[in-house]
Amino acid sequence: MTVKNVPFTKECIEKIIQVYPTPFHIYDEATILANVKAFYEAFSWAPGFKNFFAVKALPNPSILRLLHKNGFGADCSSDTELLLAEMAGITGEDIMFTSNQTPASEYKLAMKLGAVMNLDDITHIDYLEKHLGMPELISFRYNPGPLKDGNDVIGKPVEAKYGLTEEQMLDAFRIVKRKGVKRFGIHTMVASNELNVSYFVETAEILFRLGAKIHKETGVDLEFINLGGGIGIPYNPDNAPVDFCCLGGKIKNLYERIITSAGMNPKIYFECGRVITGPYGYLVTKAIHKKHIYREYIGVDACAANLMRPMIYGAYHHITVMGKENLPCDKTYDIVGSLCENTDKFAINRKLPEIDTGDILVIHDTGAHGHSMGFNYNGKLRSAELLLHTDGAVEQIRRAETHDDLFATIIFNR
Amino acid sequence: MTVKNVPFTKECIEKIIQVYPTPFHIYDEATILANVKAFYEAFSWAPGFKNFFAVKALPNPSILRLLHKNGFGADCSSDTELLLAEMAGITGEDIMFTSNQTPASEYKLAMKLGAVMNLDDITHIDYLEKHLGMPELISFRYNPGPLKDGNDVIGKPVEAKYGLTEEQMLDAFRIVKRKGVKRFGIHTMVASNELNVSYFVETAEILFRLGAKIHKETGVDLEFINLGGGIGIPYNPDNAPVDFCCLGGKIKNLYERIITSAGMNPKIYFECGRVITGPYGYLVTKAIHKKHIYREYIGVDACAANLMRPMIYGAYHHITVMGKENLPCDKTYDIVGSLCENTDKFAINRKLPEIDTGDILVIHDTGAHGHSMGFNYNGKLRSAELLLHTDGAVEQIRRAETHDDLFATIIFNR
Repeated sequence: MTVKNVPFTKECIEKIIQVYPTPFHIYDEATILANVKAFYEAFSWAPGFKNFFAVKALPNPSILRLLHKNGFGADCSSDTELLLAEMAGITGEDIMFTSNQTPASEYKLAMKLGAVMNLDDITHIDYLEKHLGMPELISFRYNPGPLKDGNDVIGKPVEAKYGLTEEQMLDAFRIVKRKGVKRFGIHTMVASNELNVSYFVETAEILFRLGAKIHKETGVDLEFINLGGGIGIPYNPDNAPVDFCCLGGKIKNLYERIITSAGMNPKIYFECGRVITGPYGYLVTKAIHKKHIYREYIGVDACAANLMRPMIYGAYHHITVMGKENLPCDKTYDIVGSLCENTDKFAINRKLPEIDTGDILVIHDTGAHGHSMGFNYNGKLRSAELLLHTDGAVEQIRRAETHDDLFATIIFNR
Repeated sequence: MTVKNVPFTKECIEKIIQVYPTPFHIYDEATILANVKAFYEAFSWAPGFKNFFAVKALPNPSILRLLHKNGFGADCSSDTELLLAEMAGITGEDIMFTSNQTPASEYKLAMKLGAVMNLDDITHIDYLEKHLGMPELISFRYNPGPLKDGNDVIGKPVEAKYGLTEEQMLDAFRIVKRKGVKRFGIHTMVASNELNVSYFVETAEILFRLGAKIHKETGVDLEFINLGGGIGIPYNPDNAPVDFCCLGGKIKNLYERIITSAGMNPKIYFECGRVITGPYGYLVTKAIHKKHIYREYIGVDACAANLMRPMIYGAYHHITVMGKENLPCDKTYDIVGSLCENTDKFAINRKLPEIDTGDILVIHDTGAHGHSMGFNYNGKLRSAELLLHTDGAVEQIRRAETHDDLFATIIFNR
């Protein structure tokens, strides 16, 4: 069970709405920082431990800088994300460049920033050398294929476009060693939004055993092992969050048993995004219409343009009606946005207290893959992003889109 | 069976790529216009027939103007789409405003432009009157509920957020008549991407019978019956397109049997988008990587940011490898984009001719819900849109996004 609180009162959010009209996402600095601290404490045993925040989860430079000041790096998957990291003051080996189907121009930018190059395929060795030369430090992404089932969200590794096979991993390190590369790392990422600790422990064991094999068979001394991301969050209050301490302890045991005993001492890295900021973001919206046909509907001023997960994944997002937290949930509503898609529903047949037009609804867990997945379908505009600082101050860290923003790329002679 | 041709040669598209780098969408004016003509001819029996093009399908003012010049109106679902219609020179009753959960500000813009107001709920009568007063002409969207099964794409009407029940439709016309409204219309939309003609005939019968009942019971003289959109296209070459003549003929029979015999003569409207432009748009992309792991992959320079349908619907889009149209399809590939989502695959286990890096791939049927559904996830930029004119000239009607476009809403003090 997870208690779904909001970090502001009704009066507080009403004041914020007077300045920043709904809908908007608001992120809570205090709980993000407490979470960052807890994550790092769970891995304090690991020398040089670092989480490279998955920029795709919340690609806002204010958030990236906040996390960087607290010890995080940035996991970038595109040139845009590299530029955002740079904007936030993150450069060099604080950037992990984990991309796929990468064009040369993006490798070039990553090299220029001194990012750690984490290659997705064995053919990218020649591609990189041909276009840019070899970097000093190189990492490869491993795809365990049939060794790992994959979870429901990301699918089976054997059907995934990512990474190298074990045989290719061994070949790749032999090749880059011959080409003069001096420093090495390995990476995998085979889960998404997974809440089962065992899943990550199993993944770590697979990657640790591969690391030891690479060390033994190629003589390569791995500087880091990047366990990827994919740690889930309890969107539904019936679920429990991943226990960082439990995770850290189990991975420590594996590290000692497989890695230390092989005479290795690589750093442990993660690339978590969702579990870092996800639960600490909230989409704030207003009820603007009540409709009764074959069901009861509440129309709100947000839509899938602001949060796409319910539409494309059927994802559950908890909803709090401000000021009605303690009323009985004795009504059943579909909470819907204005998109011309019937899947534009933030909740379906959800038990909630009676809602009136004008009520403020808070949609939980939008701090990752929320605003960043937004689109402009039906001409909908993406919303503002606010940061609620620890001292209670509210900072607008992204303004809402305007029609002019949307029309900027149109070429049309009237 | 549908033959999947492209409207340009390899040499021609190579020249275009020299000016406009891949990826881009290109729309073929000649086949769009031939299709528009065929659609109108099938309904030439219907007095005042009009299709209001669903702007959401291809929200580009150059396309809207082209269609308007050929007799189309615009079906708008948001303020943005109203502004795009206005930009294209479409105003007044050439605009159908079919929205839901509509805020007052959007109704205001629609009223200012003189659009036909198609209300989604009975409560919107009071909402409109309170905020803006009553228009002269009003339409209501009907939700047939259990009368209609719904198709696979749009789901069951009884679970849909749209429209009024039959009882509400009758009440609504009585109410607005009392409030002084003089002109009336009805509308429904219960399909999406449907290829079965019978489905539309059945829908027309339901709406015609409702129209006759409204006429009889409320004395309202309907000026139009808007049969909505939802006509599908054969994405897969195994499917056949909807036969417009067959559709027009069957609806003509129903019109005479139910409407004319009731002493009515409303205009027939449609709101088709996909079937108008869908098959005549192409996403042009280049193969940039070949990868062999547990499967064979071709990495291209487009991704789900340019075309989201395969990712979110698992949709089939046909692919032509330019210059290899007549080679045997004896290879099996996953054609993948660079998004950090394993669902970013334009094709899975697709039989194609052998593809080399540098090959130009044309992804078919992107002329509707292609560019318009694009997003910026992973920081990906949305592509340019080109119009291939009937005389062979190529016009850029939307430029590709830049990083500056993407960063325009960020508020950040370095």
